[in-house]
Amino acid sequence: MPAYKLILGNKTYSSWSLRGWLIVRLAGISFEEVVIFLRKADTKARILAYSPAGKVPTLIEDDRVIWDSLAIGEHLAERFPGQGLWPQDPLARSTARSVVAEMHAGFPALRSALPMDLNKRYPGHVLSPEVKADIARIEEIWENCRRQFGSSGDFLFGEAGIADAFFAPVVVRFRGYDVALGKTAEAYCASIADWPLMQQWVAEAAEEKEVIVFD
Amino acid sequence: MPAYKLILGNKTYSSWSLRGWLIVRLAGISFEEVVIFLRKADTKARILAYSPAGKVPTLIEDDRVIWDSLAIGEHLAERFPGQGLWPQDPLARSTARSVVAEMHAGFPALRSALPMDLNKRYPGHVLSPEVKADIARIEEIWENCRRQFGSSGDFLFGEAGIADAFFAPVVVRFRGYDVALGKTAEAYCASIADWPLMQQWVAEAAEEKEVIVFD
Repeated sequence: MPAYKLILGNKTYSSWSLRGWLIVRLAGISFEEVVIFLRKADTKARILAYSPAGKVPTLIEDDRVIWDSLAIGEHLAERFPGQGLWPQDPLARSTARSVVAEMHAGFPALRSALPMDLNKRYPGHVLSPEVKADIARIEEIWENCRRQFGSSGDFLFGEAGIADAFFAPVVVRFRGYDVALGKTAEAYCASIADWPLMQQWVAEAAEEKEVIVFD
Repeated sequence: MPAYKLILGNKTYSSWSLRGWLIVRLAGISFEEVVIFLRKADTKARILAYSPAGKVPTLIEDDRVIWDSLAIGEHLAERFPGQGLWPQDPLARSTARSVVAEMHAGFPALRSALPMDLNKRYPGHVLSPEVKADIARIEEIWENCRRQFGSSGDFLFGEAGIADAFFAPVVVRFRGYDVALGKTAEAYCASIADWPLMQQWVAEAAEEKEVIVFD
């Protein structure tokens, strides 16, 4: 087994780090964790010491550097094929890759308007039409995945996998900003909230003392 | 062999479509091509008739729908492992996945400031500090890939693959806006420009009559 080190941002705020951490945990590997606080004077330099892209999460595997949550997911899925990171069924797998890629490059309105903050609630937040459209599309993704592929468990494709790691930060955003959701989406948010890995991350975020104030 | 159909935007303007098309061509499959002009009243409805995300490119494989250029790449790489879509060497492959993922989710300043336009040049364009930083990082990626992995050919990892499909639209942007580049980046841009697949796409774009005017 290679030696692994995972470079993360604050657990309270770093949605991309949450994805990467969930994926690495799903892969079942043991790893050293390095948390670098975001938005500090030395943040960029500290991340660059590990990763040429200057971004978190970054996975170090022996002397190999893999940056970006999706590259980490594909790499670990290939290296540990028995861990179920992607669904076994080919149609489910190609759909999982599609929704993950859509999340990876999309939903800019949602991302900028509802930053992830695990330690604070923002009730009464007014949603723009663009954010509402993003939310509607995410609900549609969740409903389609649950209906078509979810019957073997409580996650998007049944068992927890990369797709859930990618949408877990969205669940945090929806809950933090009191977003009203349909029944399927509410049930899926509850599954993510009950997920032991998620509960561990949330508990560790609650221990963090650093605070970022959003505009 | 499944029946394939690829849904694209205008070849002149759709950088994401260019990626998807190059990847499908590298996979060596034959496919029917559907070009949907962007920014028309019926654009969204026409794409939605094929793809639930409402975005191009979308690949239809028999009755399966795969949307997003990266999901298409991973899907075809898995289905046609002999086509060299990803590098064979594991270290080269994990690095290729990292730089592709970085491109997939990043470089927002470059994307919005220098839209792809194959049929027009924009000389004297003033670059913001954010765009310059994006360009510097892309040059760094190209230099690192070429130096570490590129010795067997003229592309980022030697032979042409998914990484080149992802950076080909960037080459179009750099040339269209007369971006001054270092020697390695210039040589790589020349390799992309000389790539027969790229030349075919450029020739087909030149046949298009629709014009989009950028602000």
